Amino acid sequence: MNDKKKKPQKLKARLPRGFVDRSAADIRAVDEMTGKIREVYERYGFDPVETPLFEYTDALGKFLPDADRPNEGVFSLQDDDEQWMSARYDLTAPLARHVAENFNEIQLPYRTYRAGYVFRNEKPGPGRFRQFMQFDADTVGAAGVQADAEMCMMMADTMEALGIKRGDYVIRVNNRKVLDGVLEAIGLGGEENAGRRVIVLRSLDKLDKFDWVDVAKLLGEGRKDESGDFTKGAGLQTDQISKIHNFIETAKKLNSGRDFREDRAPFRKDDYLLTQTLDELRIIVEGSTAGREGLAELELIHALVSSAGYYSDRIKIDPSVIRGLEYYTGPVFEAELQFAVTNEKGEKVVFGSVGGGGRYDGLVSRFMGQPVPATGFSIGVSRLMTALKNLGKLGMEEVIAPVVVCVMDRDTDSLGKYQQFTQQLRHAGIRAEMYQGNKKNFGDQLKYADRRGSPLAIIQGGDERAQGVVQIKDLIEGKRLSGEIEDNVAWREARVAQVSVPEGDLVAKVREMLAVQAEDRARAGRD
Amino acid sequence: MNDKKKKPQKLKARLPRGFVDRSAADIRAVDEMTGKIREVYERYGFDPVETPLFEYTDALGKFLPDADRPNEGVFSLQDDDEQWMSARYDLTAPLARHVAENFNEIQLPYRTYRAGYVFRNEKPGPGRFRQFMQFDADTVGAAGVQADAEMCMMMADTMEALGIKRGDYVIRVNNRKVLDGVLEAIGLGGEENAGRRVIVLRSLDKLDKFDWVDVAKLLGEGRKDESGDFTKGAGLQTDQISKIHNFIETAKKLNSGRDFREDRAPFRKDDYLLTQTLDELRIIVEGSTAGREGLAELELIHALVSSAGYYSDRIKIDPSVIRGLEYYTGPVFEAELQFAVTNEKGEKVVFGSVGGGGRYDGLVSRFMGQPVPATGFSIGVSRLMTALKNLGKLGMEEVIAPVVVCVMDRDTDSLGKYQQFTQQLRHAGIRAEMYQGNKKNFGDQLKYADRRGSPLAIIQGGDERAQGVVQIKDLIEGKRLSGEIEDNVAWREARVAQVSVPEGDLVAKVREMLAVQAEDRARAGRD
Repeated sequence: MNDKKKKPQKLKARLPRGFVDRSAADIRAVDEMTGKIREVYERYGFDPVETPLFEYTDALGKFLPDADRPNEGVFSLQDDDEQWMSARYDLTAPLARHVAENFNEIQLPYRTYRAGYVFRNEKPGPGRFRQFMQFDADTVGAAGVQADAEMCMMMADTMEALGIKRGDYVIRVNNRKVLDGVLEAIGLGGEENAGRRVIVLRSLDKLDKFDWVDVAKLLGEGRKDESGDFTKGAGLQTDQISKIHNFIETAKKLNSGRDFREDRAPFRKDDYLLTQTLDELRIIVEGSTAGREGLAELELIHALVSSAGYYSDRIKIDPSVIRGLEYYTGPVFEAELQFAVTNEKGEKVVFGSVGGGGRYDGLVSRFMGQPVPATGFSIGVSRLMTALKNLGKLGMEEVIAPVVVCVMDRDTDSLGKYQQFTQQLRHAGIRAEMYQGNKKNFGDQLKYADRRGSPLAIIQGGDERAQGVVQIKDLIEGKRLSGEIEDNVAWREARVAQVSVPEGDLVAKVREMLAVQAEDRARAGRD
Repeated sequence: MNDKKKKPQKLKARLPRGFVDRSAADIRAVDEMTGKIREVYERYGFDPVETPLFEYTDALGKFLPDADRPNEGVFSLQDDDEQWMSARYDLTAPLARHVAENFNEIQLPYRTYRAGYVFRNEKPGPGRFRQFMQFDADTVGAAGVQADAEMCMMMADTMEALGIKRGDYVIRVNNRKVLDGVLEAIGLGGEENAGRRVIVLRSLDKLDKFDWVDVAKLLGEGRKDESGDFTKGAGLQTDQISKIHNFIETAKKLNSGRDFREDRAPFRKDDYLLTQTLDELRIIVEGSTAGREGLAELELIHALVSSAGYYSDRIKIDPSVIRGLEYYTGPVFEAELQFAVTNEKGEKVVFGSVGGGGRYDGLVSRFMGQPVPATGFSIGVSRLMTALKNLGKLGMEEVIAPVVVCVMDRDTDSLGKYQQFTQQLRHAGIRAEMYQGNKKNFGDQLKYADRRGSPLAIIQGGDERAQGVVQIKDLIEGKRLSGEIEDNVAWREARVAQVSVPEGDLVAKVREMLAVQAEDRARAGRD
């Protein structure tokens, strides 16, 4: 990363900064996970739709959470015809473009999902990549909060489909209109204050990383960080800031960390607390239509999800939730994992958010003459995968490494024979490969098979070929025995790990030996 | 596309030129197809590995088939640190970078596969997109042609796994060294002729579009096209050109269009023809080591695949195959579909290539101090999908549209009730959705369900709610009846398509009605 500039470089194999290659284990885990998510979305009546990786830059808009510097945050390039294109930074802006472009053919409500890579032109860091995968679901053309309530239930079902226990996750719900109401109540309403409202929003969004003292500075004149960089604040007065503080403190009451796994029927108490808190918030947003509407919508969402059996152990009204994206116009949600993990500093912390979303009624209508309501949810695939690995919920579907057919002789006839064995195994549905490397030595080939995790090796030298037999070596059993049998004599005598069979019995015997290994694994799993 | 330039544009929803959105049907078809390909590759012992969408430009190299203009053909942008990055144009160059970068951790032979989008900064046209998907498999670290033979067999198995009948496809095999031998024999060997050899290669690659007369011009002084543009040629003499022509004509002898579906045992005749042709070619490449090697390798590949039962109806040695990419160093292959389709001009033509590949021993070693042999195969996913659609081999896995729960009343209690029904159905594994649109009218909601292709609608108005019952309307049966029953009286009397059941029986009855519909579909399929 610290290559000296200006010096001509020799051709070096290196990934661009902030990009990664994906291993087989990673790919299989993501496939398994996205497969399960897809199943839930399909059951909810959503269909797949995908957009390309590039969009015209103007179609994306400037809605990045950290887009303090204009034109940054995205990867952009100029096309032949001088139009600017950018790699998409999320899946929502391209969906809005897609809907607007095909508005006459699309039947509303339009319920779709998609998984795909998005790109952020940001400084990479540990666990912060410039390409990552999101998995989104959206309903376009549904104005009622029923659609938002459905998103929340779908996310709860998704968490459980992935094996995350009830109590280990919660879907938190807020409404952007409530915060808008607070700001209106302290005199920050109107078009002329739009810029300051965005700063307030982004400052409050930092509450998970910063103390209130630092956030208050961002709400006021500004804040100098450790490196000495100064961030200009929203310029609010002390009484305005203290009213926002009051709101946050009231809202937080509902954000308790109670463990529902131990206490299974606290919902009535929760409902009472909710009613009480919403009443207090109604006083704080007094005089603001938006604020009143926001609180009423939260109550309706609560009623809808409760009537379908989703209580506060799964979906929780929490007016302290802030989502940093400025395009949200109504309900916002966050899927949070509540179990503890150890962070880089060795501290026990709650795992935290694995996805979120909300209502964005203005995003499609930017392109249209008419309002088009929409709501959606986005899952951060890598982050969720990390969580599932922590829980041991991934990689349950085992992939057996291929049987390796060793190459003992390299004349055309022998090679043809090995090729034949390999194809016979494959056509019987058994993963197999003929050794393709340049190592002539038998031991080196076995070492290859072993490192690859192969279950069996197939061996045929000149003598065996003359007799029409093949040797099958059990590499798993062999490994176990070499741990158990101490002296060389016993080792040589106990060579049950290798059998000789007529060529014609190869497939049947391999199948039998693989079945025995599978039983062994199952038994080990039960122990 | 013909927007007037320079005029400031209002925000318009439009896809960048040459990019497309993908529909649900398209996504499901590709998923089904890539799933089947993946199964074959796994059975052959290949594991998934993926690289990101961007690479440093220098790591990609300049290997595009049509890169007549330097620095064009790829989408490039400059990073903060002034390094140039490009969107990958294929999956081979990034794999070479990946192997070189991780050479010490990777065990050779390294057998991997990957599907992913690639990008070409070219002029888009009908069926020519700037983003498309490839599905590649590669073996790195295997120098012998056994690895190339395996690629060919794997492709043949892939075609059959996708439902393409034997005889409808063929894998054609050639060797780059044979053409190199021809060029050496006419005095175009050596480093000093590398540039001219590339021009010859690209010219011959145009033989599927151009007549020999035009290709000969490209081999000679050059060619003027219809628009008057002049392309400079390789500058060969008449006798050199005629020797190349002689080679092509000899090579073509093996490229017969015989239909193996009618004539099932012509392999011995084919083998005789092969021996004869290779002998003739041996005379043409006389004096060239590369040429001799190339022909010997073709013979060995033929022997290996034949011994595994892959005869010339599946894998065919064809020295007339030209692959335009200059990085190939040995065997090259092409998967060709042989059935006829009607083109845009209404002509019956052979469908043609759906993928290809070959040996590229120099691509990894560009980064290394040592030679690293490699061979691979790439499938053009969209093109193969078009072919499978032509054959009616896709979309066999049926996806049933969701049951729609109508919204008759919008008070909180009613909405809660509808939500409940919807969730009950989903939890029973039935695709379902509550109507989320703004149409209050019942008829409009049914129209939505109908356009969506929904099998059933669930209805509960105030009266039904009071009685604790729901109506289930069979939208498929309803549609059939409305076709069969002419007059209104009969229509009203025949309302068997709608039943009323107690709320508690909703799931059971829906399941029963869906089963009846499935039976109907199965019966219709059998008729």
